[in-house]
Amino acid sequence: MKTDIQIAQEAKMLPIMEIARGLGITEDDIELYGKYKAKLSLALWPKIKDRPNGKLVLVTAINPTPAGEGKTTTTVGLGQALNRLGKKAIIALREPSLGPSFGVKGGAAGGGYSQVVPMEDINLHFTGDIHAITTAHNLLAALLDNHLHQGNELNIDPRQVVLRRVMDLNERALRNIVIGLGGKVDGVPRESGFDITVASEVMASLCLAEDLMDLKGRLARIVVAYTYDGKPVTARDLKAEGSMALLLKDAIKPNLVQTLENTPAFVHGGPFANIAHGANTIMASKMALKLGEILVTEAGFGADLGAEKFFDLVCPYAGFKPAATVVVATIRALKMHGGVSKAELGKPNLEALARGMANLEKHIENVQKYGVPVVVALNHFPTDTEEEINLVLNRCRELGVDAALSRVFAEGGKGGEELAQKVLDVLENKESKYQPLYDWKLPVQEKVEIIAREIYGASGVSYSAEALKAIQRYEDLGYGHLPVCMAKTQYSLSDDATKLGRPVGFTINVKEVRLSAGAGFLVVLTGNIMTMPGLPKKPAANEIDIDAEGRITGLF
Amino acid sequence: MKTDIQIAQEAKMLPIMEIARGLGITEDDIELYGKYKAKLSLALWPKIKDRPNGKLVLVTAINPTPAGEGKTTTTVGLGQALNRLGKKAIIALREPSLGPSFGVKGGAAGGGYSQVVPMEDINLHFTGDIHAITTAHNLLAALLDNHLHQGNELNIDPRQVVLRRVMDLNERALRNIVIGLGGKVDGVPRESGFDITVASEVMASLCLAEDLMDLKGRLARIVVAYTYDGKPVTARDLKAEGSMALLLKDAIKPNLVQTLENTPAFVHGGPFANIAHGANTIMASKMALKLGEILVTEAGFGADLGAEKFFDLVCPYAGFKPAATVVVATIRALKMHGGVSKAELGKPNLEALARGMANLEKHIENVQKYGVPVVVALNHFPTDTEEEINLVLNRCRELGVDAALSRVFAEGGKGGEELAQKVLDVLENKESKYQPLYDWKLPVQEKVEIIAREIYGASGVSYSAEALKAIQRYEDLGYGHLPVCMAKTQYSLSDDATKLGRPVGFTINVKEVRLSAGAGFLVVLTGNIMTMPGLPKKPAANEIDIDAEGRITGLF
Repeated sequence: MKTDIQIAQEAKMLPIMEIARGLGITEDDIELYGKYKAKLSLALWPKIKDRPNGKLVLVTAINPTPAGEGKTTTTVGLGQALNRLGKKAIIALREPSLGPSFGVKGGAAGGGYSQVVPMEDINLHFTGDIHAITTAHNLLAALLDNHLHQGNELNIDPRQVVLRRVMDLNERALRNIVIGLGGKVDGVPRESGFDITVASEVMASLCLAEDLMDLKGRLARIVVAYTYDGKPVTARDLKAEGSMALLLKDAIKPNLVQTLENTPAFVHGGPFANIAHGANTIMASKMALKLGEILVTEAGFGADLGAEKFFDLVCPYAGFKPAATVVVATIRALKMHGGVSKAELGKPNLEALARGMANLEKHIENVQKYGVPVVVALNHFPTDTEEEINLVLNRCRELGVDAALSRVFAEGGKGGEELAQKVLDVLENKESKYQPLYDWKLPVQEKVEIIAREIYGASGVSYSAEALKAIQRYEDLGYGHLPVCMAKTQYSLSDDATKLGRPVGFTINVKEVRLSAGAGFLVVLTGNIMTMPGLPKKPAANEIDIDAEGRITGLF
Repeated sequence: MKTDIQIAQEAKMLPIMEIARGLGITEDDIELYGKYKAKLSLALWPKIKDRPNGKLVLVTAINPTPAGEGKTTTTVGLGQALNRLGKKAIIALREPSLGPSFGVKGGAAGGGYSQVVPMEDINLHFTGDIHAITTAHNLLAALLDNHLHQGNELNIDPRQVVLRRVMDLNERALRNIVIGLGGKVDGVPRESGFDITVASEVMASLCLAEDLMDLKGRLARIVVAYTYDGKPVTARDLKAEGSMALLLKDAIKPNLVQTLENTPAFVHGGPFANIAHGANTIMASKMALKLGEILVTEAGFGADLGAEKFFDLVCPYAGFKPAATVVVATIRALKMHGGVSKAELGKPNLEALARGMANLEKHIENVQKYGVPVVVALNHFPTDTEEEINLVLNRCRELGVDAALSRVFAEGGKGGEELAQKVLDVLENKESKYQPLYDWKLPVQEKVEIIAREIYGASGVSYSAEALKAIQRYEDLGYGHLPVCMAKTQYSLSDDATKLGRPVGFTINVKEVRLSAGAGFLVVLTGNIMTMPGLPKKPAANEIDIDAEGRITGLF
């Protein structure tokens, strides 16, 4: 079997202008970044905005396990397969963060014969979006510290600055720092730190923005600190939003690349799926819905996090109405949910598989609560047995849910044709009655409890004193109407990463609540969420190289 | 009079592919970044490297004053004028740092009718080079702190880490910080800080590199720290150079843009002119020398810093042989060198002008010491009188130096035709006998003294104890053969910014010596050099904005 990078480098990419022409986009509305990457001009939108929308298919998954589930690979493969069946399908993915590539080997652009290319560019600087976000975020931080230094007219309490700085690297040593040392000309000393750029509220704001002016409004509303008397201080108070929007004027334009089979792929925006909403930009998806018949997009982590946030937060902001949802599962991952250890996954185990199915079933039920038709994609691995496969497919049939085996990793679009056909059947025959699960106007605790009970299957929610105080504060300040963005372990439906399958009788423990007033949500944290990763003892960076002929090694 | 941004936005830019075709470059060797920016592929070099070189014209200046001298504007205007006279001239400039644009209003891409465009892009993210440098530099820092955290096998003394981090913003509060706080999983606490990216040794290394492999070698040699027993620790010891080179694989490709009159402009690399050498990349200049008949390039600050480093450091590394040097002066700046205050510059003052001429004369003498023919460009301002202009031109004639009035700011290339004709006369009739001023093999102190006496006109050099100790250490470690890179105030030939004109009887005081083993020079500091600027009380960022139609205000 060839490696991902070998397959990617053998790909016959078309010039990206040809891909754009296939979507009816002329040279006037495209900005090339080399031969195989482009940005769509914002001037394209007024020309296409009155067209009918294509159909939106969301790809989500069971709770991830170390066995892997292949959500991005399925998204890419399904897009390829739909094109093979004669449909104009476009895929939309998040763009990967550069920093982690130098920690642990492995990119984030699909796998096998279902990848987006040029993968090394997409995994490195790409079109510079994440660098622009880093710069815009850090400019805001610089303006804040400059304000403190130049007399602090806004009466900001340096101990109540909530904005940190960001960097697109794994930087353990910058998690907790003291800045402003050196004396009178070198700023005001205070505690601070860096997060990784994808955790930036600027990233989440960009991804949820409808256009550049909407983005500027969101940036202006970011709360950066509080005054000594407890009033919020925003980016607008620092007169920062114009400069920040200028720095993001190109980053907001959707990026166009292609899959290994030349399916158009929008790879744009990459917010965290825990402290943010984990989906690509609204701009990219809304353009794709006007340019193609079907948009296949994905949401981060399992359906309890990714799909919930997509349905309750992204869709209401964007005005999207998902037509179908694909839930990705693998035999291996389901067996882990049934209690099998990673080392034992190679052995057939129907009992464990049957137990593990409970995880998949809960996610199917959850998606159905939103009124969206479900198709299960069983992502094939070479070790899967006939009996195991039949068990899953039969159980889905009993539940009245369409399901198909997908071989897109090994076979590309061809291996996804059965899945694609099931998706097309659903799109034609089953009407989506999508509606969000809760009303944004409800009190914050009520919103959290609806998600915990309905989606996670919890029996209740408990709050730390700190969390209750924060909720009270945000409601008092007028932020109670914002949707909630849950930050929870992705490995379990509960907030305990070790509880696999379909746990019952558990409580969700809310430890902290943070305000993302710019992006437009309240982050509800049920555990310690790492917002700045570290490098391992042997970082991938040590093995990465490029030679005189431009050959790259060690990156994937 | 229109503002720079108004003139720039009215420019009739040609598609950059047309500019490239004019240089004989085909689509295969160009990578577009939008319609008006491109990078030249490294595959172009083998195809052109055996061609004869064009002629290199260096633009330098008298010591800068607050009155302004217009070196970049002259470089751009001269390139435009040479093209008007039928020559295939290319200009090469440094690329501006983004960060300072948000501090004080004003870009760095020429002015009036002699600018490079698209100026707002060039002054913002451009093609991402500076972001790539930031990332490569900070990855090295992350690997270093990770090494300390993971057991410190190399025995690095955390108190002797010399590598700092970088950011392309004016960030006073990050000048002096303490990192690695938070506990056992969050790194090793130590003092550190951030410099602005253009001060990064990675930037200087990129600018002095001949190709990607030469760059990788330079990166590997960067000394990041010393061990407890005083041995240097390099990026190679941290196995960082492969990843850093990969991050810079596109940044090393020269950027092609154009002037307002469609003259090809290479804008590539932007190292500090004090702690580094202040010239655009060798890669850009060497390609331009193969693609055009004349390359007009510039060096940072006055001729005592910029031209000295260009002749003694850049040319030996690159193998360049400058054919002529243009020294830019203005009546206003010469009057300041003659003792007139800025407020009084509007009034004619022939006596002060005659006194101030001494500064220009010294720079002319200096350039002649390198055997390179000189042309003086008197950059015209509306307040200049006929008598003042004649005084300067006549004095140059007495010295046997060609001189011309230049009106490139107000008139573009047309206003530079007289200057261009003088330059062409020199290129045809006066042979350059260029040779560097000193032999790199001399002891470090001897090299410094040659520059101080011959170029600055100092009577001697005094060293701090710290500087002497550092020189001894670097010579002991085998770095004594490196050329020196002087960090001195740009405002005076001496190391005292208040001594204008042509000071005599002064001593140069060396306070500190730093090693840039990767870039390939020893930095000799004669004062406190600010490597991280701060924002002013009213930052330009507060006025900058972009509207729904993409109109930018407040940036220039």
